[in-house]
Amino acid sequence: MEELFIDTSSVEKRLVNFLKETVKEAGFSRVVIGLSGGLDSTTSAYLAVRALGKDGVVGVMMPYKTSSPSGVADAERVIRKLGIKSEKVDITPMIDAYFDTYEPQADKIRRGNKMARERMAILFDLSKKHNALVLGTSNKTELLLGYGTLYGDTACSLNAIGDLYKIQVRQLARHLEVPERIIDKVPTADLWQGQTDEGELGYSYSELDRFLFHLIEREADFPTLQKLGFADDFIREVIAKVRASRFKVKVPKIAVLTEHPVSGEIRLPKI
Amino acid sequence: MEELFIDTSSVEKRLVNFLKETVKEAGFSRVVIGLSGGLDSTTSAYLAVRALGKDGVVGVMMPYKTSSPSGVADAERVIRKLGIKSEKVDITPMIDAYFDTYEPQADKIRRGNKMARERMAILFDLSKKHNALVLGTSNKTELLLGYGTLYGDTACSLNAIGDLYKIQVRQLARHLEVPERIIDKVPTADLWQGQTDEGELGYSYSELDRFLFHLIEREADFPTLQKLGFADDFIREVIAKVRASRFKVKVPKIAVLTEHPVSGEIRLPKI
Repeated sequence: MEELFIDTSSVEKRLVNFLKETVKEAGFSRVVIGLSGGLDSTTSAYLAVRALGKDGVVGVMMPYKTSSPSGVADAERVIRKLGIKSEKVDITPMIDAYFDTYEPQADKIRRGNKMARERMAILFDLSKKHNALVLGTSNKTELLLGYGTLYGDTACSLNAIGDLYKIQVRQLARHLEVPERIIDKVPTADLWQGQTDEGELGYSYSELDRFLFHLIEREADFPTLQKLGFADDFIREVIAKVRASRFKVKVPKIAVLTEHPVSGEIRLPKI
Repeated sequence: MEELFIDTSSVEKRLVNFLKETVKEAGFSRVVIGLSGGLDSTTSAYLAVRALGKDGVVGVMMPYKTSSPSGVADAERVIRKLGIKSEKVDITPMIDAYFDTYEPQADKIRRGNKMARERMAILFDLSKKHNALVLGTSNKTELLLGYGTLYGDTACSLNAIGDLYKIQVRQLARHLEVPERIIDKVPTADLWQGQTDEGELGYSYSELDRFLFHLIEREADFPTLQKLGFADDFIREVIAKVRASRFKVKVPKIAVLTEHPVSGEIRLPKI
């Protein structure tokens, strides 16, 4: 596991600079961030306050009727502790208006995705209200595994922790003195009752992170992964997941007809 | 204007192939598409039916209470003419639940953006229901000018017409025998009553498209653009718009800490 350890002071410094510079370059001085009371959003909020000050961060709680009350309570504690402004929007009326009326038979996956997109839409709406950017909170483990909703929780203006594996986020959180209770929580997207990330992913973050580290950062091949002690089925399953998730990173796929599609680099004259 | 003319037969062929191949590669055989009764969505639907057959396309109408009834009527005519399956979801309950309860003071821009994101979320939800991809309908003019909602109407799985300027879409629509009444309509996002694209953009599509064509495809510099007859103020204003919109194409901006960030190319071993 030691191979994953990060130099927390240096990472903090780089991410704080990233936040300062990216927000400034875009012509803003503030971010809005969805706070669930979980590790990723709390750590991101701590970084944002160090980068932009407490007046530069607005925390937004967006519970659904089945959301864990302790998540909201933890988010409220973080907001008080950091001294940031906050908003609270219960997404139940919007979500239920859709499913009750039009799609009552939808399963929990569809419901969870719709909730994630509702939260994204609210964050962007409130970003207009507060003249701010939307700070995303997906970590590298989730992004690689495609464990997130396309145009939902992975959608944002900028993201400070997207190149950190989950256990590295936890390491950074300790360094930033995020409340222990949040660091020690069982990770969950909380999209339905009883959901846990590790239950849904089928493996623990420590297994997944160590595997992904060797696969992605060290570019390990199949025999090397076997020598590291990973089972063949596990290797195949996780690589297939990573491969499938690359599609989400590359969308939208726009048909290219010219030498200057919008997805490419565009050089503009000085004006 | 002739410089913008496309070889419609060849473009049709390329886009039909693009649709066939992209949908197949992603492991699907069907798309869902939001139909407003306007030119871009109708043309995209016509292309999709040629690529995937009528059983490969689901048209989705998502009016708001202020939406033009003639838009919905036109979308219904297109659905009947193409013989495709359809869904209709009035987004009023979801949109009003949010703004009435939480943000009654929000202006029409915020309301329009929320509507665009609600429609995106519904299209992706219905794509799960129909085991389909979401076909986007933004054209190159809109994408270059940033005339669209980030993670709203510009968000999709794939987009066939995103490298065509608005007037080229119109040319293609004639070739595909899209109903004249839709080809001749005044373009509007219909996010509030009386809205027209050209009113909001401040210029006609024929001016904008000719300008963008020289700016982007021909990489014209300032003096060349002046020689083509464009006024200095117009040149500056449109280039500034294009430059500002590049931010939308590049989001989310994720802090990079490693040599293998999720936004880069990732090589995976054969399994």
